[in-house]
Amino acid sequence: MNAPVKFDDLEVGFDVPALPGMDAADIQTPCLVLDLDALERNIKKMGDYARAHGMRHRVHGKMHKSVDVAKLQEKLGGAVGVCCQKVSEAEVFARGGIKDVLVSNQVRDPKKIDRLAQLPKLGARIIVCVDDIASVAELSEAAQRHGTTLECFIEMDVGAGRCGVIGADNVVAIAKAIDAAPSLKFTGIQAYQGAMQHMDSYDDRKAKLDVAIAMVKEAVDALKAVGLEPELVSGGGTGSYYFESNSGVYNELQCGSYAFMDADYGRILDKDGNRIDQGEWENAFFILTQVMSHAKADKAICDAGLKAQSVDSGLPVIHGRTDVEYVKCSDEHGVIADPDGVLKVGEKLHLVPGHCDPTANVHDWYVGVRNGKVETLWPVSARGKAY
Amino acid sequence: MNAPVKFDDLEVGFDVPALPGMDAADIQTPCLVLDLDALERNIKKMGDYARAHGMRHRVHGKMHKSVDVAKLQEKLGGAVGVCCQKVSEAEVFARGGIKDVLVSNQVRDPKKIDRLAQLPKLGARIIVCVDDIASVAELSEAAQRHGTTLECFIEMDVGAGRCGVIGADNVVAIAKAIDAAPSLKFTGIQAYQGAMQHMDSYDDRKAKLDVAIAMVKEAVDALKAVGLEPELVSGGGTGSYYFESNSGVYNELQCGSYAFMDADYGRILDKDGNRIDQGEWENAFFILTQVMSHAKADKAICDAGLKAQSVDSGLPVIHGRTDVEYVKCSDEHGVIADPDGVLKVGEKLHLVPGHCDPTANVHDWYVGVRNGKVETLWPVSARGKAY
Repeated sequence: MNAPVKFDDLEVGFDVPALPGMDAADIQTPCLVLDLDALERNIKKMGDYARAHGMRHRVHGKMHKSVDVAKLQEKLGGAVGVCCQKVSEAEVFARGGIKDVLVSNQVRDPKKIDRLAQLPKLGARIIVCVDDIASVAELSEAAQRHGTTLECFIEMDVGAGRCGVIGADNVVAIAKAIDAAPSLKFTGIQAYQGAMQHMDSYDDRKAKLDVAIAMVKEAVDALKAVGLEPELVSGGGTGSYYFESNSGVYNELQCGSYAFMDADYGRILDKDGNRIDQGEWENAFFILTQVMSHAKADKAICDAGLKAQSVDSGLPVIHGRTDVEYVKCSDEHGVIADPDGVLKVGEKLHLVPGHCDPTANVHDWYVGVRNGKVETLWPVSARGKAY
Repeated sequence: MNAPVKFDDLEVGFDVPALPGMDAADIQTPCLVLDLDALERNIKKMGDYARAHGMRHRVHGKMHKSVDVAKLQEKLGGAVGVCCQKVSEAEVFARGGIKDVLVSNQVRDPKKIDRLAQLPKLGARIIVCVDDIASVAELSEAAQRHGTTLECFIEMDVGAGRCGVIGADNVVAIAKAIDAAPSLKFTGIQAYQGAMQHMDSYDDRKAKLDVAIAMVKEAVDALKAVGLEPELVSGGGTGSYYFESNSGVYNELQCGSYAFMDADYGRILDKDGNRIDQGEWENAFFILTQVMSHAKADKAICDAGLKAQSVDSGLPVIHGRTDVEYVKCSDEHGVIADPDGVLKVGEKLHLVPGHCDPTANVHDWYVGVRNGKVETLWPVSARGKAY
């Protein structure tokens, strides 16, 4: 057996929080840690679900921004490819070898359209969303200029209140324009209801999805009536995928957070009233943090603050502990209430962040851990790719 | 005159939002834009203030995480060096040529201490904070091992409720231990009151600082009484620097946000009751964003969401506009209320983020703009350096 790897072998100023082969106890904080066993179980479970329900699973790459995680989802979960939200993310995934990439968003800036239209040259199927008939000519012009084909989803606003058209007539009008446009292909419908995913109650979520499904069904029927049946009807997240899978109208899921989980998603309830992080999905994604000060008896200060996470969906939860609580977050400090003074300077804790997506986006590395050892170090490949 | 630089000269998949020489209208969104004229005026103004009040100004590098901005603060604002919060940030600044670097935080992990103790070899004065007598032996051992000297500030908790000791007796005890420890030097006191900086009222802020100043004065007097007069007494932020400067006890400021400004700081009031972003400091730091969807008449969707900013201190404000308002932030979308439908797809807006520090930390580049042209592209050199 080889000796464990240590940082002492390196020069000053290493820029990674760990090295493969290292004991997990030697990981530098704060950093992102993946429990590889839990991650693989989540991925396999969702893959099995999608397969059993005849659904394609296009995993949402904007959550993890990692080519390595996306490839694991292909290998273990039968994922058909990824969706992502920005052209710069699509570039990373396509360059990384993902062969089916959906930009589940509008692309309207001329330079971004130009970049997008070149991506099929990397050997990937590229799909983009449209919610404005003026967008059709813009995409068609760029694809013709580059000699490529861009596939198009029409984005419907099924309740999220962001991008997307409302009404079957608008969908049909845009579908006809796409179908008639050189170098474009009308492929389907993007109908993700983002606003209901985090509602606690299963019944409340179902009511929102029932409305969404009815809107999508009306649009699909209208498209069939004009001979433009969509190949793909895509949507669904960690808080809704069972609704889309049993809708009879969607045929592609876009789940992201199920693989990692976070504190905000963990609090929502399944149909039996149980938190989804207590059975349905496992926490596989943590911020490892260390206590660096305990100058006050009832308060420990840890090294994971706003530069190590996003608190838009609430503070992180200390995994596996009920005796201490993360109560305040400033730029570089987390304040932990420690009423019994049980924590020691140097002690490490696993935090479940409030919101996994923007938390992953502030880090450069995932440290993959199994059986107390660092097994792998994966770059957050599309970190910061917001344009 | 040269032709403007354009992205068309480049291959697909550039990883920068702009190029020097480019028209500002061609900057890709979302990205960070610095108004270089406003930035320089802020830096000069604070430099003049510090000089006139006989204060050293150690600018807070954790705000901008940029060697380039720190050097501009030395050149135009007479800054004596930087403070930062993490060893990995100190490595970036010391490698970048900053010669006086304070880690205004506790460093307790053995590997971090080992890295810190090597930094003086880069030719920089390195100061670190101590709030626990056990920390003294740890630092001394590492500095002896590397043949370097680490200077120490004793961190006092003067109201922020994070790291730091309370009470002159604790300060004296730690100062004596530092003074007696090989390879350490007792240099001064760290006394930053972080919890009052964002209180709206000048009088409320003054009341908090009066308490802090009294605590520091008591500690300084006690240190003098045992022959350990501190060389430096350091603290002060954008919401308090005039109190420390007129205290007769502090001699070093640590301001950060004044250079960029943000929406949360902008709302606090000066002693005449005016917002500090309307006279005292200028907004020099923006997220440039673009409208990408306007499928609903009264709502525009822009491309700067949670991956382009931190909303811990509130939503961003649209600079120079009262007719439209940024009302909701999700991962990749910003929802802008546009009741009169005045915005167009493709239109660009300047957002003043709620909190500059963690917003800078999600971006790789600052795009420096002057007179409608991109003048420079600066890396966010210590981005993600949280360990």
